[in-house]
Amino acid sequence: MKQVNVGICGLGTVGAGTFNVIQRNLDEIARRAGRSVKITHIGARRDNPACDTSQVKVSRDIFDVVKDPDVHIIVETIGGTTVAKDLVLTAIENGKDVVTANKALIAVHGNEIFAAAEAKGVVVAYEASVAGGIPIIKAIREGLVANQIESLAGIINGTGNFILSEMSEKGRAFEDVLKEAQELGYAEADPTFDVEGIDAAHKLAILAANAFGVSLQFDKVYTEGITKITREDVQFAEELGYNIKHLGIARRTDEGLEMRVHPTLIPNKRLLANVDGVLNAVLVIGDAVGPTMYHGAGAGAEATASAVIADIVDIARDIDSPGLVPHLGFSTVTKDLPVLAPDDFTTSYYLHISVKDEVGQMARIADTLSKHGINMEAIIQKEAPDDAELVPLVLLTQPVKERQMNSAIAAIEALASVPEKVVRIRVERLDS
Amino acid sequence: MKQVNVGICGLGTVGAGTFNVIQRNLDEIARRAGRSVKITHIGARRDNPACDTSQVKVSRDIFDVVKDPDVHIIVETIGGTTVAKDLVLTAIENGKDVVTANKALIAVHGNEIFAAAEAKGVVVAYEASVAGGIPIIKAIREGLVANQIESLAGIINGTGNFILSEMSEKGRAFEDVLKEAQELGYAEADPTFDVEGIDAAHKLAILAANAFGVSLQFDKVYTEGITKITREDVQFAEELGYNIKHLGIARRTDEGLEMRVHPTLIPNKRLLANVDGVLNAVLVIGDAVGPTMYHGAGAGAEATASAVIADIVDIARDIDSPGLVPHLGFSTVTKDLPVLAPDDFTTSYYLHISVKDEVGQMARIADTLSKHGINMEAIIQKEAPDDAELVPLVLLTQPVKERQMNSAIAAIEALASVPEKVVRIRVERLDS
Repeated sequence: MKQVNVGICGLGTVGAGTFNVIQRNLDEIARRAGRSVKITHIGARRDNPACDTSQVKVSRDIFDVVKDPDVHIIVETIGGTTVAKDLVLTAIENGKDVVTANKALIAVHGNEIFAAAEAKGVVVAYEASVAGGIPIIKAIREGLVANQIESLAGIINGTGNFILSEMSEKGRAFEDVLKEAQELGYAEADPTFDVEGIDAAHKLAILAANAFGVSLQFDKVYTEGITKITREDVQFAEELGYNIKHLGIARRTDEGLEMRVHPTLIPNKRLLANVDGVLNAVLVIGDAVGPTMYHGAGAGAEATASAVIADIVDIARDIDSPGLVPHLGFSTVTKDLPVLAPDDFTTSYYLHISVKDEVGQMARIADTLSKHGINMEAIIQKEAPDDAELVPLVLLTQPVKERQMNSAIAAIEALASVPEKVVRIRVERLDS
Repeated sequence: MKQVNVGICGLGTVGAGTFNVIQRNLDEIARRAGRSVKITHIGARRDNPACDTSQVKVSRDIFDVVKDPDVHIIVETIGGTTVAKDLVLTAIENGKDVVTANKALIAVHGNEIFAAAEAKGVVVAYEASVAGGIPIIKAIREGLVANQIESLAGIINGTGNFILSEMSEKGRAFEDVLKEAQELGYAEADPTFDVEGIDAAHKLAILAANAFGVSLQFDKVYTEGITKITREDVQFAEELGYNIKHLGIARRTDEGLEMRVHPTLIPNKRLLANVDGVLNAVLVIGDAVGPTMYHGAGAGAEATASAVIADIVDIARDIDSPGLVPHLGFSTVTKDLPVLAPDDFTTSYYLHISVKDEVGQMARIADTLSKHGINMEAIIQKEAPDDAELVPLVLLTQPVKERQMNSAIAAIEALASVPEKVVRIRVERLDS
């Protein structure tokens, strides 16, 4: 059985997980791969007590690994985008295939990296960069290859989903749950990447590129976090039969491609609405297969390692035939599909309008929406609490262009009876 | 771009779907495959008005297709196991790669077919044979290649799931829903394969072989249908917080492999419990990745075609390097993992015991279970309806060996106060 040598650069959580899973399941992986996958070289500034590396060559300089002539496949698990980019480009230059779990690296520098890899005839694979252990890149790239992908929608940030799940299930406030998530290690001390949606936007750019054959365009992903979601809106959504989830959505329309990350009301009957806690799930709709959904752990040492090793084995299986696996990297054949600006998005809306408790206000707002061509689907109007000057008016609209909604909201906010900003959250019914 | 020629044998539902999806998405498939996939020859006893085959060579004798020297890949969509087996073996003999959607063929004759394919250095792929368009074979074979698979559990028969969903949601009786399923075309005039679990057992044998590296052992799958599920038991299950689903389960234990198809109570919080109607879903638990779930259409012309074409493209990508894709077919390296007899299964149970309404009966039954080492987890005891001689006693047990449960039930049925057969349904909590 042919032996394929793997070098791991970075022995943090994912690097250590990859090392340990390969060592533990060596025989099973060989049986299933038809190859003996062996870790022969590790680059790490310091040892990781979780790994017994006594049988492996260890270098303190990770660049020693990518220059090692005995190593076939490089695993990049150092994270970040500066040194990691240098490392991956050097590995490619040295004719190595590369596997990475680094979503920021691929989302931001992927086009340059894939071009370098194609020029050199090597592969850069990145299954672990999106949705942890769920084989979602493989599903889109290979499993659904027959399809024109129509849209995808994913819960692709576990931290954000944990926070929204807790707010929904236990009626807790955002700040309160965020603090717990930090204590549990789900959220970083600086939670910006998670709660502002940047991490999800990285992943969405990668998913969209795979699904729609466009280049990576992270800078064109409309990104909105979950920091402004209140308990009140979570509760109103529930009264309407919806859960609020932080989704990454990519959708092909006649005019172009929508790429957007934002809090979204989805009907609570949908499976995606019932994906709770730190789990991830991605719904992909193809013209032939219809809707399919993929669900599992979006993070964690061994779950992510599972995806890293899947890429290693895919490359190892075809290692004798370089160039046969362009699908593992990224095709340079990209389609000319324009990415739409937010004004051109089409979605339904949840609007929460605080209105002065006076006769005729409801009719005035309905009239304003109607004049902007916006139809309502559901309304909740609560009685004013004692002494309250403002009453909440909550409604769902039919799908409209975002441009229309912006004008309508400007007009509503101009009404004397609406002294506060209108809360708006997009709605996806996910029924097609 | 290299052209790969495909011959389709059988132009029924799946064959026609495959033809139409390839014709419609020709450019997209070529872009994603890096190959031009062209249907050059169709074998069908008669034309199918759904397909415009005017540009394609058509033979009335399907064996003309597998002997055509210009055809690289054969799609077998004639169904059945007699002619289909001949056809596939002839195709292999002629050096063709084969793609099939035929679960009965693979489950029953797969070992022989794969051996012939390995001997000849060709591939037999069968993604479409399980769970329609869901890329579940690829997920297990490649996406989760790093894992020791611990267990899998799937809703893999849409007809059965439709019937149970309707019984649960609308309180309808089995016979009533079956009749509707037949009218809707979900169930055959002879529904035996679906409602007795044979179809699910075919698929489970295929999933288990992939997940656990054993040979196909359809004849060792314990198979129980849904014909004895009553509205009453569906309702009692709901009171206990469970839904009844017809699952195919394969699980590795220290003693061997469980392969079983039967109605199963699962907690209604689990995603799998909320997969309704004709949809399919498979939960796969790996030692590294943890639980992952795959969900989508388990049948239908184009959904199944999506899986057939994924196999075609996998083969087409590697067509220049025969022998590089043993993973597409079936490795002859099988593990020596014994398949357990039902007596050795370990599961929890739902028991529904009709007891004479006399003092002390409940205690006697509890005592009998306890003497057999069986612990109870939950109990419902209803008051007797007026004049009723028997009252229903419903309980859930902790996991036990089936052998133990058989003895316990025999002892309970021997009690004078229990004049009727005990209803037993297995329970899986799916929490690990």
